[in-house]
Amino acid sequence: MPIFNAPLDNIKFVLHDLLNVEQLSNIPDYEEATRDLINPIIEEGAKLCEQTLFPLNQSGDKEECHFDNGKVTTPKGFKEAYELFTQGGWCGLSSDPKYGGMGMPQIVNTVMQELICASNMSFGMYPGLSQGAYDALHMHGTDELKETYIPKLITGQWSGTMCLTEPHCGTDLGLIKTKALPSDDGSYNITGTKIFISAGEHDLTENIIHLVLARLPDAPKGVKGISLFIVPKYLPDDNNQNNVSCGSIEHKMGIKASSTCVMNFENSKGWLVGKANKGLNAMFTMMNSARLGVAMQGLGIAEVSYQNALAYAKDRLQMRSLTGIKSPDKPADPIIVHPDIRRMLLTMKAFTEGARALSYWTAINLDISLKHPDEKVRKEADDLVALLTPILKAYQTDMGFECANHAIQIHGGHGYISEYGIEQYARDARIAQIYEGTNGIQALDLVGRKLGKDMGRLLRRFFHPVYDYIQKNQSNHELQEFVLPLAKYFAKLQQATAIIAEKGMANPDEAAAASTDYLRMFALVALGYMWVQMVEKAINAKDTGKYSDEFLDAKIHTARFFFSRMLPEADYKFKAILSGAENLMNIKAESF
Amino acid sequence: MPIFNAPLDNIKFVLHDLLNVEQLSNIPDYEEATRDLINPIIEEGAKLCEQTLFPLNQSGDKEECHFDNGKVTTPKGFKEAYELFTQGGWCGLSSDPKYGGMGMPQIVNTVMQELICASNMSFGMYPGLSQGAYDALHMHGTDELKETYIPKLITGQWSGTMCLTEPHCGTDLGLIKTKALPSDDGSYNITGTKIFISAGEHDLTENIIHLVLARLPDAPKGVKGISLFIVPKYLPDDNNQNNVSCGSIEHKMGIKASSTCVMNFENSKGWLVGKANKGLNAMFTMMNSARLGVAMQGLGIAEVSYQNALAYAKDRLQMRSLTGIKSPDKPADPIIVHPDIRRMLLTMKAFTEGARALSYWTAINLDISLKHPDEKVRKEADDLVALLTPILKAYQTDMGFECANHAIQIHGGHGYISEYGIEQYARDARIAQIYEGTNGIQALDLVGRKLGKDMGRLLRRFFHPVYDYIQKNQSNHELQEFVLPLAKYFAKLQQATAIIAEKGMANPDEAAAASTDYLRMFALVALGYMWVQMVEKAINAKDTGKYSDEFLDAKIHTARFFFSRMLPEADYKFKAILSGAENLMNIKAESF
Repeated sequence: MPIFNAPLDNIKFVLHDLLNVEQLSNIPDYEEATRDLINPIIEEGAKLCEQTLFPLNQSGDKEECHFDNGKVTTPKGFKEAYELFTQGGWCGLSSDPKYGGMGMPQIVNTVMQELICASNMSFGMYPGLSQGAYDALHMHGTDELKETYIPKLITGQWSGTMCLTEPHCGTDLGLIKTKALPSDDGSYNITGTKIFISAGEHDLTENIIHLVLARLPDAPKGVKGISLFIVPKYLPDDNNQNNVSCGSIEHKMGIKASSTCVMNFENSKGWLVGKANKGLNAMFTMMNSARLGVAMQGLGIAEVSYQNALAYAKDRLQMRSLTGIKSPDKPADPIIVHPDIRRMLLTMKAFTEGARALSYWTAINLDISLKHPDEKVRKEADDLVALLTPILKAYQTDMGFECANHAIQIHGGHGYISEYGIEQYARDARIAQIYEGTNGIQALDLVGRKLGKDMGRLLRRFFHPVYDYIQKNQSNHELQEFVLPLAKYFAKLQQATAIIAEKGMANPDEAAAASTDYLRMFALVALGYMWVQMVEKAINAKDTGKYSDEFLDAKIHTARFFFSRMLPEADYKFKAILSGAENLMNIKAESF
Repeated sequence: MPIFNAPLDNIKFVLHDLLNVEQLSNIPDYEEATRDLINPIIEEGAKLCEQTLFPLNQSGDKEECHFDNGKVTTPKGFKEAYELFTQGGWCGLSSDPKYGGMGMPQIVNTVMQELICASNMSFGMYPGLSQGAYDALHMHGTDELKETYIPKLITGQWSGTMCLTEPHCGTDLGLIKTKALPSDDGSYNITGTKIFISAGEHDLTENIIHLVLARLPDAPKGVKGISLFIVPKYLPDDNNQNNVSCGSIEHKMGIKASSTCVMNFENSKGWLVGKANKGLNAMFTMMNSARLGVAMQGLGIAEVSYQNALAYAKDRLQMRSLTGIKSPDKPADPIIVHPDIRRMLLTMKAFTEGARALSYWTAINLDISLKHPDEKVRKEADDLVALLTPILKAYQTDMGFECANHAIQIHGGHGYISEYGIEQYARDARIAQIYEGTNGIQALDLVGRKLGKDMGRLLRRFFHPVYDYIQKNQSNHELQEFVLPLAKYFAKLQQATAIIAEKGMANPDEAAAASTDYLRMFALVALGYMWVQMVEKAINAKDTGKYSDEFLDAKIHTARFFFSRMLPEADYKFKAILSGAENLMNIKAESF
């Protein structure tokens, strides 16, 4: 099915009408891109996704990666697709032109991530991991390391990984055991075992560049004693093996065409990235970029699930409408006539369009934070990105899984069998709630790190524009039906924030007990803020001829659905937050 | 892991303290069973599940059923396990002693269904389908048919199926095309193709007895022209083939050790079950029994997910408690110290224990409806079962899937890989939300058929006891913290009921638009009603020595969690119900 026609209009609406990507042209580096490159690039990328990546999605899932004596083979067609992908320059879309990158804004990358994940999430893992490695190196590596590694990561000849997890530690990186012993030549010998390493071994590239967390001999205990090293599979100077081996690959619920590897390092040569014992900082560079990427996986799966479910709901004939026959010439009506089917479809539509707006807003601020000439503007944009990153990661991946499951439900039994490919979306989507920090960890990041920072400095970057928007528009009678509930739930969100800040100060378990519900509530209010603005822009775009009336009316209807049936979930979350930590902590572990 | 020690205490608490299964001893048929047979039987059954079925769960998933030229082979060990299962008499636990059954109450069957599904949901499909065939035959078959087929279904030598779905119709059985032509000898020739037939072909039994929906030549159109036929794979008089063949089996998301077959009937000999053109009635006998069985699948998966997640949460060391080190002798604290892990565990615990109480209450009423000497009592019990069946089916399977996903989340990356067996629970659980009527259809059954019947006659069987309970206990100060919120949400449920009844009368789409949210709200209130009673019984059981203080305190803590963090979801559902159908129906199909 033609999976990318539908969202392209929505993508352009958000980029140009809602968020005005043209504002980036104030940033010299982006002038050309924002003037007239963005749309053609995205259209070209959508074509590649549809014609090259999407056709390999089901076959890749069925075939899986093969492991044979340390060698990993990707499913049929992946190598050729990867070649097309790299030839098109897609690996270096937003990378530094100094090293051969195209230097496009991050927003273009973000748009592409959704399309890639919608068409083939497993495939997207390979260039996605390279991007994380690029980011860490580009930010923290020495010039020599950059010159050696970055150009080939940008062309895609080499790929990257993030080697953090060990058998006994995932979330708790302070427990890492992998060792790094200094050598005389300034390099290090790395020894240890890493698990769950995506793209740790495969046959797509000439070399694989591992970014490995390890401990120096004299390192302090815990997270303050972790350093980041770059450890190539083959040494770049002589192309010799570097004692990096893949012990096995995991059989998983989904993303089966993405290799998940046990990686063994045995006196493998590595070089320090960033400062000794400051590996966690460098890792967070990779991690924040990866978290936004994972958020786009959630959105991508939700979008392709929606498109499949919508096509099926229009096509499948079953029962008559309860209010009278709608298709008298057919043996039954298409199931899209049924309210409960529409409830699921609209949930998917309201989520994907709202989350796309929120993601792009974040990505544009990422661009501003990186390249705007004014430091104050950069800092403020950076604060907003830091605040929204855990929210996007957790909410969008939770909803990606939920939307995939709505698609299964709409397909009925046909959704559960492998033939239609729908159940794969749920299996693939499920990992995104877990990796790059479980969604519970995202929620702790939000209430623990982001909320309290400098008396709510980050929060203001979201609260102020929402407050201003409400003030400005609360008397606009066309928008009132949306602005008033937004104002109501925004007030509750502020109240919840104050309660968590106060109670959490006295007892950190109180903040943690509220965290997941608070993150969801925050995301709902943020989506409400996006939706009311989309309604405003849709009203303004009428009679401009840029979009069909159907398209613009659908925006208003979908917003109505969101405010009536999705946003009120925030009430429930608010009550859960108020209920406090006692109902979780008072039961003894032995009494569970 | 020893999966069944934990729930046995909970099972006995519900059977004997909460619901007082001994009341069934007023029914002559059950006197012996309820006096002293129930506990030993359940313990014996739990042993069988743990020692025989559970060890085949992961291997069965990995191996799947094999299809070769019409023959289906179940995974290794299934045949031997099925023999042990039948030798123990488990197929005929609640079946009619006249035909060789053990004549135990249905409640015993219900208890066993949970244990079987917790240990091996795929395995449970085979005897489960036989049970449905038994029910339809026993209720609607002629004496001759009963004598021919029932004894061997009870021993398990033969198994049964339900052949309803065809490629173009699942929910909409009015579209069925399979034909039945009358023969001179009183039998019929059945021709057609059925899909998604669980246990349609396999190697566990000597014969397979299909119950097939088909149309007579002169049948009226739609559901009023469907008849039910019994069509054996081998004819019972001469053991000849009956032109019943399996065309293929489906590859599915889960329950991979249960065969899901395309079944072809070509002039296969069949006999009418029940009256001509009244097949839907007979089918509903199977279906209602099957729906309760599916509800127990949801509960079973939730229970085994909980037990796995709990064991992992006590064992896995990761991070320190936010309120100070809890296990100073270990490198980190077990993750059960973290509030968000507890939130997920308590969701599972509150659901499984509450839903078990609700399921057993329903099953005991099923027994009363079948065998109580007083017709009025029988009728009232039947009404309660009819009302609760769609609620149990949809809510418990939704929560089964949700709990399996909580277990994955608690396991982190280890939950996503196949090795631990946790992701299988989510894949297996997912089908239960779809088959035997999707959960959307359950919700329509609730608001469409059950709500309005005879001016709310069915509803009174639930509303009256809840009302009486609240009246009686609202001044009990030990129970007040539970009775008052129950009263509040019960009032909202009554209000929602009235609104749906009124608006649905004028526009049936209004009822349908509210249906899924209403069902969830109803289930939450029903669970609240179970939980407040469990608290009452736990308080009464203190100092009796029957249960440990830990066990009884946990009941009260878990209830507190349920009322604080789960029941308030009903507020959200209430708002969605109030929002009406317009926000679903006003958007045109083309504008999606």
